[in-house]
This record gives sequence, structure tokens and C-alpha cells, in this order.
Amino acid sequence: MISFASDYLEGCLPEVLQRLIETNAEQSVGYGEDEYCRSAREAIRRHLDREADIHFVVGGTMANAMVIRHVLLPHQGVIAPESGHIAVHETGAIEAGGHKVLTCPAANGKITAAQVEAVVQAHRSDFAREHTVQPAMVYVSQPTECGTLYTKEELGALHAVCEQHGLTFYIDGARLAYALASGSDLLLSDYPRVCHVLSLGGTKCGLLMGEAICFFRKTLAGDFRYVMKQSGGMLAKGRLLGLQFLALFENDLYVRAAGKAIGCADRLRRAFSAAGFDFAFSTGANQLFPVLPPAAAKQLKTQFDFEPWQTLPDGRVVWRFCTSWATTESQVAALEDALLTIADT
Amino acid sequence: MISFASDYLEGCLPEVLQRLIETNAEQSVGYGEDEYCRSAREAIRRHLDREADIHFVVGGTMANAMVIRHVLLPHQGVIAPESGHIAVHETGAIEAGGHKVLTCPAANGKITAAQVEAVVQAHRSDFAREHTVQPAMVYVSQPTECGTLYTKEELGALHAVCEQHGLTFYIDGARLAYALASGSDLLLSDYPRVCHVLSLGGTKCGLLMGEAICFFRKTLAGDFRYVMKQSGGMLAKGRLLGLQFLALFENDLYVRAAGKAIGCADRLRRAFSAAGFDFAFSTGANQLFPVLPPAAAKQLKTQFDFEPWQTLPDGRVVWRFCTSWATTESQVAALEDALLTIADT
Amino acid sequence: MISFASDYLEGCLPEVLQRLIETNAEQSVGYGEDEYCRSAREAIRRHLDREADIHFVVGGTMANAMVIRHVLLPHQGVIAPESGHIAVHETGAIEAGGHKVLTCPAANGKITAAQVEAVVQAHRSDFAREHTVQPAMVYVSQPTECGTLYTKEELGALHAVCEQHGLTFYIDGARLAYALASGSDLLLSDYPRVCHVLSLGGTKCGLLMGEAICFFRKTLAGDFRYVMKQSGGMLAKGRLLGLQFLALFENDLYVRAAGKAIGCADRLRRAFSAAGFDFAFSTGANQLFPVLPPAAAKQLKTQFDFEPWQTLPDGRVVWRFCTSWATTESQVAALEDALLTIADT
Amino acid sequence: MISFASDYLEGCLPEVLQRLIETNAEQSVGYGEDEYCRSAREAIRRHLDREADIHFVVGGTMANAMVIRHVLLPHQGVIAPESGHIAVHETGAIEAGGHKVLTCPAANGKITAAQVEAVVQAHRSDFAREHTVQPAMVYVSQPTECGTLYTKEELGALHAVCEQHGLTFYIDGARLAYALASGSDLLLSDYPRVCHVLSLGGTKCGLLMGEAICFFRKTLAGDFRYVMKQSGGMLAKGRLLGLQFLALFENDLYVRAAGKAIGCADRLRRAFSAAGFDFAFSTGANQLFPVLPPAAAKQLKTQFDFEPWQTLPDGRVVWRFCTSWATTESQVAALEDALLTIADT
Repeated sequence: MISFASDYLEGCLPEVLQRLIETNAEQSVGYGEDEYCRSAREAIRRHLDREADIHFVVGGTMANAMVIRHVLLPHQGVIAPESGHIAVHETGAIEAGGHKVLTCPAANGKITAAQVEAVVQAHRSDFAREHTVQPAMVYVSQPTECGTLYTKEELGALHAVCEQHGLTFYIDGARLAYALASGSDLLLSDYPRVCHVLSLGGTKCGLLMGEAICFFRKTLAGDFRYVMKQSGGMLAKGRLLGLQFLALFENDLYVRAAGKAIGCADRLRRAFSAAGFDFAFSTGANQLFPVLPPAAAKQLKTQFDFEPWQTLPDGRVVWRFCTSWATTESQVAALEDALLTIADT
Repeated sequence: MISFASDYLEGCLPEVLQRLIETNAEQSVGYGEDEYCRSAREAIRRHLDREADIHFVVGGTMANAMVIRHVLLPHQGVIAPESGHIAVHETGAIEAGGHKVLTCPAANGKITAAQVEAVVQAHRSDFAREHTVQPAMVYVSQPTECGTLYTKEELGALHAVCEQHGLTFYIDGARLAYALASGSDLLLSDYPRVCHVLSLGGTKCGLLMGEAICFFRKTLAGDFRYVMKQSGGMLAKGRLLGLQFLALFENDLYVRAAGKAIGCADRLRRAFSAAGFDFAFSTGANQLFPVLPPAAAKQLKTQFDFEPWQTLPDGRVVWRFCTSWATTESQVAALEDALLTIADT
Repeated sequence: MISFASDYLEGCLPEVLQRLIETNAEQSVGYGEDEYCRSAREAIRRHLDREADIHFVVGGTMANAMVIRHVLLPHQGVIAPESGHIAVHETGAIEAGGHKVLTCPAANGKITAAQVEAVVQAHRSDFAREHTVQPAMVYVSQPTECGTLYTKEELGALHAVCEQHGLTFYIDGARLAYALASGSDLLLSDYPRVCHVLSLGGTKCGLLMGEAICFFRKTLAGDFRYVMKQSGGMLAKGRLLGLQFLALFENDLYVRAAGKAIGCADRLRRAFSAAGFDFAFSTGANQLFPVLPPAAAKQLKTQFDFEPWQTLPDGRVVWRFCTSWATTESQVAALEDALLTIADT
Repeated sequence: MISFASDYLEGCLPEVLQRLIETNAEQSVGYGEDEYCRSAREAIRRHLDREADIHFVVGGTMANAMVIRHVLLPHQGVIAPESGHIAVHETGAIEAGGHKVLTCPAANGKITAAQVEAVVQAHRSDFAREHTVQPAMVYVSQPTECGTLYTKEELGALHAVCEQHGLTFYIDGARLAYALASGSDLLLSDYPRVCHVLSLGGTKCGLLMGEAICFFRKTLAGDFRYVMKQSGGMLAKGRLLGLQFLALFENDLYVRAAGKAIGCADRLRRAFSAAGFDFAFSTGANQLFPVLPPAAAKQLKTQFDFEPWQTLPDGRVVWRFCTSWATTESQVAALEDALLTIADT
């Protein structure tokens, strides 16, 4: 059985594993204050081409919860697309931290600067504004939950509206490598110009685990290590995260590894289309959302793993197929063959 | 200036004030363990015609936050209409307590048993349900935020779906007296049969302040006094709440006082209609939501206070007019006259 | 049965009740934005002789929880005496808001500037400070839980150490009137010079309910109304609090009413001493903590209500007797007589 | 520089690393529902000789915070030694989850059943118990923070008092392997009989990261996966934890690897004693707390890393030396030599 169910099915990139093997017996101080973490931060800063306070944490839910809890005051909330990860798939982690997620309808998983403006204006014009949650942050992910990509212009507009109203703009980059390796018009060094906080995902981009949280404003980063420790997000053997990110950001491995996944996704995109299947969203990165008739889905399920995403109003089912840094030529070829067979039937 | 802006503009019913005056110099134990609280609980139980654990707290936001925090486990959420008070006008008090409000679209402020069923089923069928908040409670208010009323059948259906799936059904009765005094087909003694927790509002129904929280299941009430104290909801001079509720539930004052408000609302309803104005919601209790042209609103504003409720998609503005236990004949007559004048213009 | 069990046994001062009666039928806007609240704030500011952001809330536990939650960041804690109200008798309200209470041993209920300095230094010198809660606030009450009084010098020293290390100094004045009316060397106008936030208790000082929170720094007060609403601490009929505080701060009623209680306490202090009983704490305000032999306590219990405070290491029991604005000459005389009788036996 | 600063300085046991290498390219489902996690749970259950719900999480602070948050109701607190990890070194993670840590004085890091009984009785006899936090859980760690060990009798007594009063007894076994490998009179299979929840530490006992939480009562474990996800404690590539624990609990590696550390610690214990140094605590596991004169500490610091633990009232400094599964013969020999040299000076 070949799985396209997600992009966190395998362990880690060989280069990353090699680092862990080589350094296994070394002694180093804990909690992210070691040399490897320092070097990894430097390597990331070089790619960002900007000063940044960078912290490594184990996972994405934790990263989102900690950033939001750190930035917001108790009476403030975070604006997010209604399909956003924090709004849907983190078991209420943001609310458990005390904050409301203020959701906006999100065609293709994206929200616009105009929507943010509207939420802020609605709050300000409320006859008794203290009775409603104060919007103070905007959360989006790049790529989005639906695999779509924000353009530089769209993110710039979101950034501008945040700047204008004093909101913090946070981009969740759990899969950012795939955005960077796709046709997106943003380089990594563009991100510090369009947001205030960015997470660089490792878990889905070739590491065993780990996200790098980058604060582009000193004031936002202050005392973040306390919040990390309090939230259980400070790894005792912190070097494990540093080592992995170091491997990822030396020699451009981050984008290179993701590039392979994009190539695989492009082949599959063509294969699904050739077999006559539509996509629910027009994605550019490593996730595909084909609409499959029951017979086709059933047929593919005999050979492949993949997950249902949603049921459309007309009853048709959208499925998610992910490629990743680990996807092989032969896995792609097997799915291409299966799709050809289905198309011929 | 006469105000119809809300139903908490004046102090309290004369009968209630009299009680406070008569007992002012008495000494009594604090925190709700005095004789007046005991008697008030008995009086309410008689009206409910059912055993119930009854607790008096100062205000409505607090009542909702405490009940929900007390009933839910950390990973659970509460289903509510998207226009529900807890979803909109409590500055995120529920989220501050750690819980997500799972909102449903609500025509006329009401949600249905079918919607609750759908939320529960969606959660259960999620491919990885632990990634989403577990629905464990349903919140509605009677009357709703839009002044509409649930029928006995509708509440019964909500109760049934909650029973079936092990959810707790909580009715926020901040304005319940007005529902009871209106054409609603539910008596107070019907409520214990259609919900598990009920709050009986005092603040908007003739008291200086105070809500009575009624738990109809022993297990739900356990240790609630700890939660009250922790939340700052246990009044030191607790007898003040007992005394007031005692005055309200002796001699049927609760429904009688509200009945006056309903009579006033009915007169105004006819007056707005006669003047040619539509209502945004078809309400039965003490709140009216007429759609007023700018000129009419401006004209009325010279003599009366009332609040904007929402702007319709077509740009017209809906306004809220409240009557209450304190509304006088002459106040109603003044507004009737003004509406007649406008109609004649 | 005459009760000396606490200072919140009766309703309110006649002057306060009169205000409520006179204004009962008036209409006013809600949530503390009415004229009475405005005037009450002005009256308090005059007594403080200082600019201050003043907010009225219903009760003391709530006041403490809201101030602390508003001022602290998630990783910060509040230093308090181990006998402090927030550390002992608020059912963990501060922890429920996410913050640790960092307790210090407190002889006679008081902590010193040196103790605060030590807590700060211990935190800063910790080998891994992010692993421990960051002290960011100091909480004391005046009078203390044991009825003792801080001197101007002691509060000044606490203020200085807070200023030096960037901590916020909050004084809980739930019973401040009694401190002001006692031999304390601080006037109300001295408090803005020795702390950053002060609560002025109403519940125990002659009101039905209510505390006034005074912020002496603009930055500390920002958006506090959101926190009030979120915490359920914003009274719908907010004028009730304004009216009462207005009555209390016109004509110096606050200190005058408390002065009567101090006179009563002084008489009882002499009576207990004359009867040969020691006090556990040397108090100056309205609370007495005599150590009573079992027989004496039993004898007094036939006529009076009063509460056990603690059991000393040698097994003797300390009891608390409170006088208040409501204590009458005849109540004091009755206890004096009873003590004389016991002394004669 | 050789470090004895902690037991989380190196990567992981070679057997564990080998597993990660061998399985790196495999695809498996995420979030702890894979075959390796299943097998690891089975392996642990065999060692526990008892049915248990077992969950793998990344770190210890997180494990403690999640277990406590899952078990306690909002108004409940957890009893712990004042030196307990949750009371001191987790940046208030328990309070951030809403709960007070009720600390007891702890000679040698241990609390007794009598102390727990006293806390429960004090709460129950409080004149107004709802004003204080309800004790509902007991937390200890084995070995303790000071490296001391509870005996089977002591844990049995704690368990009995918990059973009697309906408290949950949780043992934090972050270093449990070292207790098992030491002269402790408890086997792993004894623990299910003396507690209700146990964490088995991996991070400090030979894994890259990971703790296994074992619930011995079905009711305690219910829905724990929701809490894990909400707290950010559910690793996406969950198999990484399963794989590592599987390696640790096959072939008794857990106790064997720790045994090496105990052997090293015993050698060092003798060497410190021979050099004339006292210990602050009489420890049996892998941590030593010698009291070193400044000159000796300075001398050792030229060659070794180790950390200050506390300063005694008489000004002498206690230092901590840890051995671990990774400590080598030559590292121990080097420290023995250095101590000999110091003794000879």
C-alpha cells in the first residue's frame, strides 16, 4: 500500500538523519541554548535576510498556540479563515489559551485585507465595543489548508491593513517549503517584509519534528522562552531541533527537498486531469484535492491511501492527495498508472 | 428624553425595593447561605414544580461563563446560535474560560435539533476526531437575542437530541419572564422537562441585579459553589439576591411584572405597523426590531432613546426598542403619538 | 443573637440606601457609563488628590482577579503574603486566570520590601530563569488579613522596590476605610504615592456591594473595561455602584462611618484585655483576634456569633471579632458585659 | 570538558538510534495510532503486568500539565512537595492550566501520607470550604527532585490516603529508570498498585525525547487524546515515540541502561566521600548533591561541568552531579582522579 495521505508519513531527510547520527554521543547544554541551535538560527537568518528572534519548538499546534498566547492580551482575539488550522483542527487550543478565533468566510482557504478591515470596523463601530472581543492579530497559513497560495500582493495587503490598525500579522508556514518551491512569487526573504511573525515548518518538510518561530519585531519576541517553557514547548534536548534545522538550511535543502515534492504533485495533477477529474481547489503546492466518483475512489483505495477532505453540496466527495520530500518516482508512477487504467475503463 | 434602549434602565420593582429597605439593618450570614436565599430557592422550586439545585449570582455573563466552565471538560465546546449572547456580546468570556463556542447559522436567532445533530455527526465522522473540539453542550436563550420565542416542541426536540448524545442542554433565561408573560406555550414548570440547566434572569426582569441558576440534575450541580467563588460570582452579602428573588417569586410578581411590559410591547407593535414600518424579526416578547427609514429614526431620536441593531444587506437599518416591567403608560403613549405624527407626514 | 462574625452582615449605610430609593425610577445608560458613575469617580479623585482611572466592580475576589489578570503577562506571577486573600480564600481565582501566586512568609500578615527583593533576586539568579515564574507584581492588603496595618514607610519601601524592578504594586483596600479611620499614618491621598493600583472596598465599608479599582498609571488602565466585561464584572445597572460610591465619598462618609467601627473595636479591645485575654495579632483597625480558652468561647457563643481564625501550635484557638459601620453601642455594651461576667467567674 | 550537569546531555541509546535509522523510510499513520506505538504500549503493559491506557508525549512539563489538567476540575488543586518540579521549575504550567499547586514542606524532597491527610482535613474543616481550593490529586516524583527515593511503604501509604479521600495519585517518573535500577524496593510492576497515573520518562533515560503516560483506571484516561492534541502534545510523526519506547522496553533496556548510570553514581559517591565531602541529600539513584568548598568547586570546574543546586543557610553551596545511561567509564575515572587530587592537596 502506497500512501499519499499526508506529508508526515516518513521519518526525515537522509541529510538530517546523518546529522543526528554523527552527533549522537556529543554532550551539549539543553533547552535550545547550544551551538547547533545558534548556528541554525544564523543559517535561517541568512535566508530571511533580516534580523529575527528565532525559536525552535516541537510541533505546529504548539507553535500556533504559543505565538498567539504570547502576542494577545486576555481580551483580544485572532482573525483567521474559517478553514484555518487554528479554527478547525487544533481541538480548540487557541480557546484553551483564552482567546477567541474570529473567523472569516474563506473562498479557497484565503482571507483578504478587505475582510480584515471589515472585522476591525465592525468592532470599532459596535455600540458598546467592550462587549465584543477586540481583534488584534491576523492568522493565515501559506500554503493554506486547501493548498492554495497567497500572492505577494495579497500578503502585502494583509500586512498593510494590520500595520494600519496595529494588528500583528502571523503566517503559519507549516508547509512553507512547498510554497517556496512552487510557482509562488515570494522568496523566503520576502516574508519578513509581509508579516510580523512567521513559523517555518519542519515536520512536514523533511524533519522528524520541529517548527522555527521567527519574530521580526524585538518587542514581539520578549520573554518568549518563558512562554515556551510554560507551554511544554521547550525541548530538553533542544539541540535535536537545532541540528535538524541546520541541516535543512545549509545548502538550500529546505527548498530543494520541497521541489521534488512539487515535481511529483505536478505529475499527479496532470494525471488526474488526464483521467477527467476536476479539482476542488486550484492548488500550486504539494496538495491535490481531486473530486472523485465513488467507483474511482474505491478502485484507487485498493492500492493507495488518501483521505476524504469534504463532501460538496451536490454530494460529490473531495479527496486529498499529498506528495512530500519523501515521495518517490515509483510511487508517482504507480498512481499515474492506476489513473490511466481508471480513465480507460 | 424617554428611553426604550434596553430593559435594564431603571432600578427595581417597588416590591423588591421595599424588601431591601425593611431588612437593611438585619444581620445575616454571607455568601448565599442565609434564610432569605433558602426561602427564595423554595419559592422558585415551587414554580418549577421540580427538585433543583438553585444558585444566585450577580449577572448574566458571569452566569453563562460559570455554568459552561462547570459543565464542560477542557476539550469540550458548546453549540450556540451565531447570534447567541455567549457568541457575540460577552467579550469572549467562554473562550477566556477555555472553551470554544461552536456556532450554527440561526435564522431569527434560533437553532434546531437538526443542526445540533449535524454538528455532533460531523464531529464523530471526522477522520481524526481528537483534532476537533468535542461538542458537549447546547446553549440557547429564551427569548432569543432577536426577541423570538422557541416553542415547546422546538425546545423538546433540542432536549431530545441532547439526551440522545449525552449533551447538556442549557437555556439562558435572562429575559425569561417576558417569554412566560407572552404568548409562549411554555409555563415555568415546563422548563425542567425540556432542559438540564436554566438561568432565571432578574436584572432585566425587575431586580437591581441577579440571576438564578437552576440545575435539574444533581450531578451537574456538584461543587458549583466552588466555581462561583472562584469566578467572583458569590456575593458577600448574598441575602441581597435571595431577598430580591423572594420578592419576585412570591405572589407571581415575576410573570405579572413582565406582563405589563408585554402589554406595552403589543401596543408599540401595533403603532409601528400602523405607521407602516416592518419588523426584522417576528417577536413575541418585550423587544421590537422595526426597520426605520433614516428620516423616521432621526425624528424619533429627538424624543426617544433606542439602539441600532443591525444594517440589512439592502442598507436599511434595524433598530431595537425594549419595553420592561418599568415602562409606563405615558411613555408608551408618547411613542405612539410620535409614530402617528410620522405616519401622517 | 448578636453577630461579630464579619463586617458584611448588614445591608448598607442609610445615606446609601436613601440614594437608591430616590433614584429607583430614573432611567440611565448601563455598564458604568452613567452620570452617577462619572460623579462618583470625580468624588473619589478629589479624595485621592490625583488623576486616576477608576472602575467600579461588584466584588473583591473579582476585583483582585481582574486587576492581576489585566496587569500580568502569561508567564508572570504575583508576590503576596502567604496569608493574603488571593493566596488563601479565593478558591484559586488567580490560578484560574493562569497566574501563580508567589507567597512569602508573613509575620502578622505583612511582607517586606526585603522579601520582595529576595524573590526578584532569586528569580534572576536562577540558572535557568525561564523555568520559573517571573515575578511582576506585588499584592498586599491594607489592613492585612490579620487586621494589622502597614505604615507609610513600609508601603513606601514596597513601592520603591517595585519601581526599581519594574513590578506593579497593588494594594487591596477591601477594608481600607477602617485603615483610614484608625491610627494609620496614611491618608487616602497618600496612597497614589505608594502604589500603582488600589482597590477601595465598598462591600465591607457600608455599601450593599462594590469595589472601586483605581489605576494611577494610564498604561495600566488601558482596555480594562474589556477585561471587566469578559470577567463578568461589569454590572448591567452600573449606576447602582456609582450611586453608592457617590454617597460614600460625599461628605466624608467613607471615613466617618468607619470611624464608628474603630471606636467600637477600641472599646472591645479594652474589654478583652481587661478580661485577661491576649490577642494573636496587634491590630489597629476593626478586627480583633483574641485567644480564648474553650470555656470562655463557649460562654460567649451563647450570646454572640464570631468565627474561629486559627489554632495555635500550643492548641489554643484564635477567634475573630469584627466591628463595622453598622455596629451599635448596645451590641458593644452587650459584649463588654459578657466579658466582665467571664472575667468575674 | 566533561559534563555531569544533567542526564539529558547526549542523544539516545544506540539501540534506539538504530531503530530510527532502520525505519526512517517507512510510511506510517500519524498521531500515535501506528503499529510501533501499539507494540510499545504492549511492551510497557507487560512490564507493568497490568492493564493500562498508555499515551506517548514529547516532554515532561507537558506530560505533567496535561495529566493534571485532564484529571482536575476547575476548582481543584494538586498537592505537591514544595520542591516538586511542577511547583518550581515549569514556569507555572499548572497554574497556566488553571490549577493551584498546594505545596507541602518536603524534607529530602518527599511528602508523607500524614501531610496529605492534614491538607485534606484542613480543607474540610475550613469554615467556608468553597473559599479554598479543593485538594483532589497528589503529585510526587520518583526519584524526587533531590534524588531521594520513596519506599514501597511510603508510596503505599500515599496511595491509601488518596484512595480514602478520593484523590488521584500521580507519580512523575521522569527518571524512573534510575529508581528501578537503584536499591529501591519497587519493581515497575509494583507501581500500578501504588498509584493511579504514572509517567515513564524517556528523555532522561536514553531516548531523544518522550514520556509514556500510564493511566491505571479507565475513567481517568477517557478522552485524553483530545487533551493531548489541544495541548500540542500529540506528535504528528507519533511513531517516533513508539519506536523509541519499543526499543527501550524490549530486552529490558530501560533498567539495564539505567543500571550503568547507577554504577557510575555509586563510584562517584564513594569518591566524593573519600575526598571528605558530605552530601546534602542521601540519594540512591543517579544524582549526587555534594557540598563543596569554593576552592574544590573551582578546581573541578576547570575540567567538569556541573550545576549549583542551592546555598545552605550556613553559606555552603550544594552542587548537583548527574550520571546517565551515557556516562562512560573514562568520564567517571577522570572525576575520580580529580577528587583524589583535591583530597591530596
